[in-house]
Amino acid sequence: MRVYFDNAATTAMDDRVIEAMLPFMKEHYGNPSSVHSHGREVRSAIEKSRKKVAELLNASPSEIFFTSGGTEADNTAIVCGIQTHDIKHAITSPLEHHAVLHTLQECEKKGLLKLSVLEINEKGEHDLAHLNKLLKENPKSLISIMHANNEIGNINDLNAIGNLAKEHDAFFHSDTVQTMGHYKHDLKNLPVDSIVAGGHKFHGPKGAGFLYVNKAKKISPFIYGGAQERNMRGGTENVIGIVGIAKALELAYEDMEGHRKHVEGLKTRFIEQLRAHISGVEFNGLSADLDKSLYTVLNVSLPPSEDNAGMLLFNLDLNGISASGGSACSSGASVGSHVLRALGASPERDAVRFSFSRFNTVEEVDYTVEKLKELYGVIA
Amino acid sequence: MRVYFDNAATTAMDDRVIEAMLPFMKEHYGNPSSVHSHGREVRSAIEKSRKKVAELLNASPSEIFFTSGGTEADNTAIVCGIQTHDIKHAITSPLEHHAVLHTLQECEKKGLLKLSVLEINEKGEHDLAHLNKLLKENPKSLISIMHANNEIGNINDLNAIGNLAKEHDAFFHSDTVQTMGHYKHDLKNLPVDSIVAGGHKFHGPKGAGFLYVNKAKKISPFIYGGAQERNMRGGTENVIGIVGIAKALELAYEDMEGHRKHVEGLKTRFIEQLRAHISGVEFNGLSADLDKSLYTVLNVSLPPSEDNAGMLLFNLDLNGISASGGSACSSGASVGSHVLRALGASPERDAVRFSFSRFNTVEEVDYTVEKLKELYGVIA
Repeated sequence: MRVYFDNAATTAMDDRVIEAMLPFMKEHYGNPSSVHSHGREVRSAIEKSRKKVAELLNASPSEIFFTSGGTEADNTAIVCGIQTHDIKHAITSPLEHHAVLHTLQECEKKGLLKLSVLEINEKGEHDLAHLNKLLKENPKSLISIMHANNEIGNINDLNAIGNLAKEHDAFFHSDTVQTMGHYKHDLKNLPVDSIVAGGHKFHGPKGAGFLYVNKAKKISPFIYGGAQERNMRGGTENVIGIVGIAKALELAYEDMEGHRKHVEGLKTRFIEQLRAHISGVEFNGLSADLDKSLYTVLNVSLPPSEDNAGMLLFNLDLNGISASGGSACSSGASVGSHVLRALGASPERDAVRFSFSRFNTVEEVDYTVEKLKELYGVIA
Repeated sequence: MRVYFDNAATTAMDDRVIEAMLPFMKEHYGNPSSVHSHGREVRSAIEKSRKKVAELLNASPSEIFFTSGGTEADNTAIVCGIQTHDIKHAITSPLEHHAVLHTLQECEKKGLLKLSVLEINEKGEHDLAHLNKLLKENPKSLISIMHANNEIGNINDLNAIGNLAKEHDAFFHSDTVQTMGHYKHDLKNLPVDSIVAGGHKFHGPKGAGFLYVNKAKKISPFIYGGAQERNMRGGTENVIGIVGIAKALELAYEDMEGHRKHVEGLKTRFIEQLRAHISGVEFNGLSADLDKSLYTVLNVSLPPSEDNAGMLLFNLDLNGISASGGSACSSGASVGSHVLRALGASPERDAVRFSFSRFNTVEEVDYTVEKLKELYGVIA
């Protein structure tokens, strides 16, 4: 059996997304900036995609900018947000994705801003009183707090943070890569200034993302060149990526409740079985709390084991199970997860992130639990 | 008949490129940063693509960085080149693509550098004595001069410019978007520090490009995030784009001479027929000089005509012919071509860029000439 439980890293593309992209690989190859017929038919596809994304998120098409992915979108919001709005102080969390954390650290290194890091507890919950204090001391800050954490699944309260931001005239950016396509975003009512998406996190293509920027908080471009994306991003558009991400979001919204119910069922079963069979199992962050964490992510902390120490992911892989230790984005590096470190997780306990999608099955959960039982010496 | 003569804006994808991409849309969907089997098979495809590109260009794989396209690659080379090497002065040409020109102008606006613009003659040739003078006055400059112009086709002498750059310790970046896949680049022997490519200019995908940076002139990242591209570009890789651009370059190199011969034949025939049938026809820049211009680009300057004034592209489009006035990248804007303006081209003469690929035919050339004859009142 081959099990793919690394859907927070990337998801398999939906066949209907591929079908939507193919005509733009084959017959519709024009440059959308060209005014002739070959160009116009492609321009039309891009603008229809933008309109679709805007409709689903209750935003205006003029607030949606297509990018090469979530990371470029995060970089754009942060680098151009502070520049356009003359912001000299930023507040973030130690649990942010590197697309946010490294970008902010680089801005600080260049002397563009001073960076404050929010205090958290051992479950990864943010201290909003600390946020309030920081905002009082530094009005007109940039706040960058993700909607949900990619490693431990914790969901942050964007309304609470956004309302504090408004009170203190802050620019509030939220990395929504893990919730886009899995949770509904109502941007006319959500107090955020910018959010982002990466298509491959919800069965769309890699290399395609978008940035939403509230029209009241316009920002300057990150990539200069042609007049594409209404002068907000130079470069010939990744047409197949744009068509693909819009189709993927459309499909996600078509039956979001159904997908959620299915995936939540898998996660619940996984938690129950692990608790029943692996003595001493724990869960990092809030990931075992169904109300406060992504239904797609479960971060399991396993009891110390000589046989598996540092080898757990490898042992799972040998059994055909693809999962991740922390974020895939840093797994090539020799350093461990900065998120688990920030929580003070014990380095003696192996951690593994299982992340699910609507393509996963109950059989895959049961198979994985069986293998974990074998690895941890439980006689079935 | 529907004729696509706008190949400098973008090209149709080669079916073999699409075939190479499809498995990474369907079965191989893993995140290349993941260490499990789903990730490893994709990582392997990316590194094979990098090796292939490096081999074809006689570079080292460690010098090739995949990007979202030529524009991002140009932005990276310029913004990070000046930053890493502490460069305070840049030299460019008024004929550069906006990906270079706007990026440099933005750097100047931010006070990061002083920008000098090379003098040119009415054919768009650069004054290298002026370049030499500027370099003497400003050692350790960044020079950004394209290999070949996208509108008029002029080919610049990268060896001459690069040797001057070396003499004066300058960083030499060249936008090679129009020559990549159409001309051979031997990077162990070409005196450039960085060059770029956009896949869709040589029958590869849009949204995929690469940046070559000579290992002796390493630069910092433009997009921060994960450890992708050896820490040079954060963000999950556009796997299908990377596989596609490498395949497209491989195909381009397989029969570059054959393609060149075919396309050059079309261009020669086009020039001859226009000269024979349209009285007063001229050619902008060096585009009628086969030795000094791209074989893929012909920029035609048509005699003043009341019937066609400002309507030529529209009239061609009505006849099924897709061509461009200046660069497609700025055709959405109401301003005309900055290149033709810099050459001092008469605003009374309509200009049209016909650009060819190996998919074009003699019949398409003849059909287009017939239509131009009709539009310009020549009785056949």
